[in-house]
Amino acid sequence: MNPVILGVAGGSGSGKTTVAEAVLDTVGRDRIAFLAQDSYYRDVEWTAKDGPQQANFDHPSSIDYPLLLDHVAALRRGQAVEAPVYDFVHHRRLERTERVEPRAVVLVEGILLFVEPSLRRLLDFKIFVDTDADIRLIRRLRRDISERGRQMDDVLAQYERTVRPMHLEFVEPSKRWADVIIPEGGENRVALGMVVARVEQLLTL
Amino acid sequence: MNPVILGVAGGSGSGKTTVAEAVLDTVGRDRIAFLAQDSYYRDVEWTAKDGPQQANFDHPSSIDYPLLLDHVAALRRGQAVEAPVYDFVHHRRLERTERVEPRAVVLVEGILLFVEPSLRRLLDFKIFVDTDADIRLIRRLRRDISERGRQMDDVLAQYERTVRPMHLEFVEPSKRWADVIIPEGGENRVALGMVVARVEQLLTL
Repeated sequence: MNPVILGVAGGSGSGKTTVAEAVLDTVGRDRIAFLAQDSYYRDVEWTAKDGPQQANFDHPSSIDYPLLLDHVAALRRGQAVEAPVYDFVHHRRLERTERVEPRAVVLVEGILLFVEPSLRRLLDFKIFVDTDADIRLIRRLRRDISERGRQMDDVLAQYERTVRPMHLEFVEPSKRWADVIIPEGGENRVALGMVVARVEQLLTL
Repeated sequence: MNPVILGVAGGSGSGKTTVAEAVLDTVGRDRIAFLAQDSYYRDVEWTAKDGPQQANFDHPSSIDYPLLLDHVAALRRGQAVEAPVYDFVHHRRLERTERVEPRAVVLVEGILLFVEPSLRRLLDFKIFVDTDADIRLIRRLRRDISERGRQMDDVLAQYERTVRPMHLEFVEPSKRWADVIIPEGGENRVALGMVVARVEQLLTL
């Protein structure tokens, strides 16, 4: 087995998770090894001393890249990994892990995947989900307020303080490394059809 | 037969022709009906009165959209068309035509495909080949000077007078309508692999 590594990146609210989920659902979760960059957050004291509200979850330093890199490299060699499980309430990694078995296709998803050169080099297919900033903000507002019970003022303040500047500094320039750019994300059935067709083809090779 | 129409657009020198050729070569020219927007230029007196040097081949009015639209619609209905043949030396359409037989996949290629709404609506897959302006200029310089025997000053003057302004006014905004954006064009093997995989899949459905 010579696994193919597929990376899906894009800004917060771009629809990249929907793209990843659609690939998993269409191709079949048992046929793809899946890693989410979100599982590889560092414990919050690593990145900020002012408590979780001030933590910058959009800065590359918030990600445990060495571990993520190790895991992608192991899956590429056909070895299983113990993926971390992150507790988003207390902003730290749990003791328990989740085993991810090796598969012919490995899908990795996250906003900062293409930023770190050593990780980028492990990705055979780099897909960037590109959605206008206002649409991304609308999605983030709806999700954080209705699904996570947050206040609008708080969501907007975090957006201005970390999400937007980190997007401009790290996420947007990393689009440069993409092999394919998908506008609008998960609603884009045509692009999804192409990605799925290629994954299906790779699985039959 | 319910043919699928694939449109490949992008600026001059973007590599869109290389993408279209790669799809044709990989999938097989006998399995795809191919139309080039360049064959649908109007005779030059239609668009300019100052001789061909002053003609603006990058403006939408230079394209015979009604005829191109008719032909795409006919191929979509499963009917053969007689595609025009353009004489780029005398800047007019020849008497003879080239028969294009209907196929399950129809590939249309050209810089202004996504500009005209009625044409855009006929395209099931809209692929935009997106390449930086300086790289596109380098390719155009090399091609026009070494392959077409033109002078650098002349190529740059045409670039400044029509290619660049028309790109900014028409081609670049038409990227908005793309389903998939391919950076760098024909050198992008990963993206080509996805497009080809989808076309192969469509041909077996």
